[in-house]
Amino acid sequence: MTSVLVTGANRGIGLGLVRQLVEEPSVAIVFAAARNVDTAKDLTAISSPKLHLVSLEIVSEESIARAHAKVSEIVGDRGLDLLINNAGIFNAYRLAGAIDKAGLMQQFEVNAVGPILLVNKFHGLLKKAAAKKGFAQIANITSALGSLETACEMSAPMPTALYAMSKAAANMLTRKLCVEFREDKIRATSFCPGWVRTDMGTDAAALSLEESTVPLAKLILALQEENNGLFYRYNGEAIPW
Amino acid sequence: MTSVLVTGANRGIGLGLVRQLVEEPSVAIVFAAARNVDTAKDLTAISSPKLHLVSLEIVSEESIARAHAKVSEIVGDRGLDLLINNAGIFNAYRLAGAIDKAGLMQQFEVNAVGPILLVNKFHGLLKKAAAKKGFAQIANITSALGSLETACEMSAPMPTALYAMSKAAANMLTRKLCVEFREDKIRATSFCPGWVRTDMGTDAAALSLEESTVPLAKLILALQEENNGLFYRYNGEAIPW
Repeated sequence: MTSVLVTGANRGIGLGLVRQLVEEPSVAIVFAAARNVDTAKDLTAISSPKLHLVSLEIVSEESIARAHAKVSEIVGDRGLDLLINNAGIFNAYRLAGAIDKAGLMQQFEVNAVGPILLVNKFHGLLKKAAAKKGFAQIANITSALGSLETACEMSAPMPTALYAMSKAAANMLTRKLCVEFREDKIRATSFCPGWVRTDMGTDAAALSLEESTVPLAKLILALQEENNGLFYRYNGEAIPW
Repeated sequence: MTSVLVTGANRGIGLGLVRQLVEEPSVAIVFAAARNVDTAKDLTAISSPKLHLVSLEIVSEESIARAHAKVSEIVGDRGLDLLINNAGIFNAYRLAGAIDKAGLMQQFEVNAVGPILLVNKFHGLLKKAAAKKGFAQIANITSALGSLETACEMSAPMPTALYAMSKAAANMLTRKLCVEFREDKIRATSFCPGWVRTDMGTDAAALSLEESTVPLAKLILALQEENNGLFYRYNGEAIPW
């Protein structure tokens, strides 16, 4: 029985993943983490004994430490089986347009540095779970926009350079986790949820939330050792780096 | 005749590039930019009428604006032909080891955000040069360690995850410049200088400074339109993303 922590769970892809994960028979505990869980109406509306709301600001080491303490208390020696780094932001700047350094830094802080802080802090709990079950997992929700190979062909209704840079960095985290956490039997994989009708994706997007997050949740739970270190679309298609 | 600006020119790869660029017959002006040009002994020791020292802190918008004003004054309507984003740092952390958020942020600030601030500010000067000559160029000195495709096979004497993440981001900047600056005829290319005996590369590295920077400077100057948006080793070998 699997325990899962999802960041950025109050809306969008994170919320969709939580809704599906609590329905999955193999999942026993879902930690839905968000900055303000008390006011996250869509999260509190989910009625499931599996669900635990966790207050978490992923760019704050103190907040991560508090969330880690809460999760530790609940999972104990069983550890945490699956960490889903989903929280992310999209700061849109044209490279030749008006930019501000604070906005550039924030893009890397949330999409690249936050996930490092999380995998670093939760490494011990993941390792515990891996020691019991044979493996644990980190799922990094990045984006096909972070693919360097296809970057020159991608078009989007808004400027994607900065976001793509942060997601390429997040994809590299997956690759390096696959090396540095391998001996602890912790796997890492990147996923693109597709272009989804969320606050970030806008109403113009191709997919409903469920069309992305139902197959994505099932895909993440079904991963095997041979998927370690790779990059997949929500529907299981491989994405080049 | 080409005008070139090199960042991080006070030592290592940047210094080696400046030394070679002033020797190249096709190069007329070399702006050697560094934080403290007054105390950069190796730079001030270069005796060439082509050389202009420019004080530049690449993570400071104010410093970039001052450097831009100085360069503008000298090149005038001819614009700037070539910007070499070379300045970089290597913060080594193991993903499961002791980390600090400030060090993580600094890695992205210098290696990814600084280059964005620079290309943004110098866009106008590059565009001017391109309008006159048919093209201008941005050369991003990144690293083969930033290659996602080979990331799981790379080994290094120090932890590379964070540095690799920042260099993957910098490589994505190359790819997005290639799209967003294309209609201004400004090309962008990524380069790996190889593992060089510099302060960053340590004495254990395979290459002397000249073995890297002499061919690298010649390679950058020889680039054609078909090299736009791609990634090369100092010796001209293509590197996968």
